[in-house]
Amino acid sequence: MKRSIFYISDRTGITAKLLGETLITQFDELEYTETTIPYIDSPEKMQETVDKINRAGEQDGVRPIIFDTIIKPELRTILNQANAMMLDFFHTFIGPLEKEFEQPSSFSVGKMHAVSNVKEYDHRIDAVNFSLNNDDGATTRNYKDADLIIIGVSRCGKTPTSLYISMQFGLRVANYPFIAEDMDNLKLPKELAQHRDKLFGLTIIPERLHEIRTERRANSKYASQPQCQLEVRAVEALYRREKIPFLNATTRSIEEIATKILVQCNLSRHTRQI
Amino acid sequence: MKRSIFYISDRTGITAKLLGETLITQFDELEYTETTIPYIDSPEKMQETVDKINRAGEQDGVRPIIFDTIIKPELRTILNQANAMMLDFFHTFIGPLEKEFEQPSSFSVGKMHAVSNVKEYDHRIDAVNFSLNNDDGATTRNYKDADLIIIGVSRCGKTPTSLYISMQFGLRVANYPFIAEDMDNLKLPKELAQHRDKLFGLTIIPERLHEIRTERRANSKYASQPQCQLEVRAVEALYRREKIPFLNATTRSIEEIATKILVQCNLSRHTRQI
Repeated sequence: MKRSIFYISDRTGITAKLLGETLITQFDELEYTETTIPYIDSPEKMQETVDKINRAGEQDGVRPIIFDTIIKPELRTILNQANAMMLDFFHTFIGPLEKEFEQPSSFSVGKMHAVSNVKEYDHRIDAVNFSLNNDDGATTRNYKDADLIIIGVSRCGKTPTSLYISMQFGLRVANYPFIAEDMDNLKLPKELAQHRDKLFGLTIIPERLHEIRTERRANSKYASQPQCQLEVRAVEALYRREKIPFLNATTRSIEEIATKILVQCNLSRHTRQI
Repeated sequence: MKRSIFYISDRTGITAKLLGETLITQFDELEYTETTIPYIDSPEKMQETVDKINRAGEQDGVRPIIFDTIIKPELRTILNQANAMMLDFFHTFIGPLEKEFEQPSSFSVGKMHAVSNVKEYDHRIDAVNFSLNNDDGATTRNYKDADLIIIGVSRCGKTPTSLYISMQFGLRVANYPFIAEDMDNLKLPKELAQHRDKLFGLTIIPERLHEIRTERRANSKYASQPQCQLEVRAVEALYRREKIPFLNATTRSIEEIATKILVQCNLSRHTRQI
């Protein structure tokens, strides 16, 4: 018996999906299919959606599960007609909060905030552009404007981490690679030493680095086990000697790496997701 | 009277913060401060957190609000001692779901899933690298491997949108700029016409484009109002003539632009957030 799970939203669907997925993955034995249906913002679209949900339930022989963030009463009325289990994120929590704050929410009075605003958008774009322009040691002269400089060997995850942090948190993140030629007698370059409080090191298990580099350049010295081991060992020794905070990125998601760096560097988030 | 809002997690805190923020921003009149405390994974850290929350409440003269995704019973017991209003995303919904599915969740049996896995990580990194290597028309020879090709004038938001989609959804997104020299008698280049079903156009209000370009190169022809108008008009005409789906990015968040493109292109998400 397979369950149909639906994430329904009149906006992006990111919130409904995040909540639902986090919960659903707690059920090991569950067989299910997921469908995200965003931008359901008219009665016609909602009616189509309800029909789709009901058809899925009939096919499955068991009622579907709906996670939703639908606000407008005229859309909710239609959605409530679905023959499904409904987990309604806003209604569940807004009531208790209104009581606690002793004020109605804009949810209740029927107006929803536009979440995006030009200033925040500009701020994030500016941060992403900074990270792109200061990727992979392209230049070191903008480090004075950086919020964070991520350092590490080639292919340990610096670029995606930098981009993620700039995109999600609006921080200006540069990154700088240590290359094979640096490895004899590895020292902290002057350009980095000047900004010691902005440095964060990434490291990686040498075997994993070998795998990643092999995909890129098989059978090269660059990808060889000994070279990977040598580089990782030299860089970790440098981090310890210079007391640079660092993290092993090996089995971590980009989100985990990013948030752990923010915690360790005591950086706050400049923007919000929607 | 100011409220202290806390987002508490034994992992990244992204879920607790995203869900909490969505609720809190519904209260226009609320004065508040937000604090995210991630990686609270030991009784000691939790006790410190509770002390911090209680101190905030005493200072504010009103109890704080806690949004949390704490799973482990030994941590919950401590958190429950905080003198605060607690909104616990997991407990609220897990009970009803266990009943519906007639099975216990791994949440209840006390084991949490590791969300990250190497394969998914690789997939996302691969997608991000693809987007970086195929940014801004750098090359057109990989378009056969692209899931999506975003097109538009310079500075309309192609790069951040491409990176966001590749990072969040694991899709290979290239982007291609139309430049001033293309504008007389604008046609769809052969390299793009071959992959018509992968194309998505971005557009932008000319006044906004003028602002953005002025920041980059003030008083240039590139940034001038007439040039911005000309380019936007030419490109929108091309989209219509060639029946390329397109979107005005002007006042939209990156998330909105990204999710709208996925819906319109009928692309599904290859990865999940945590």
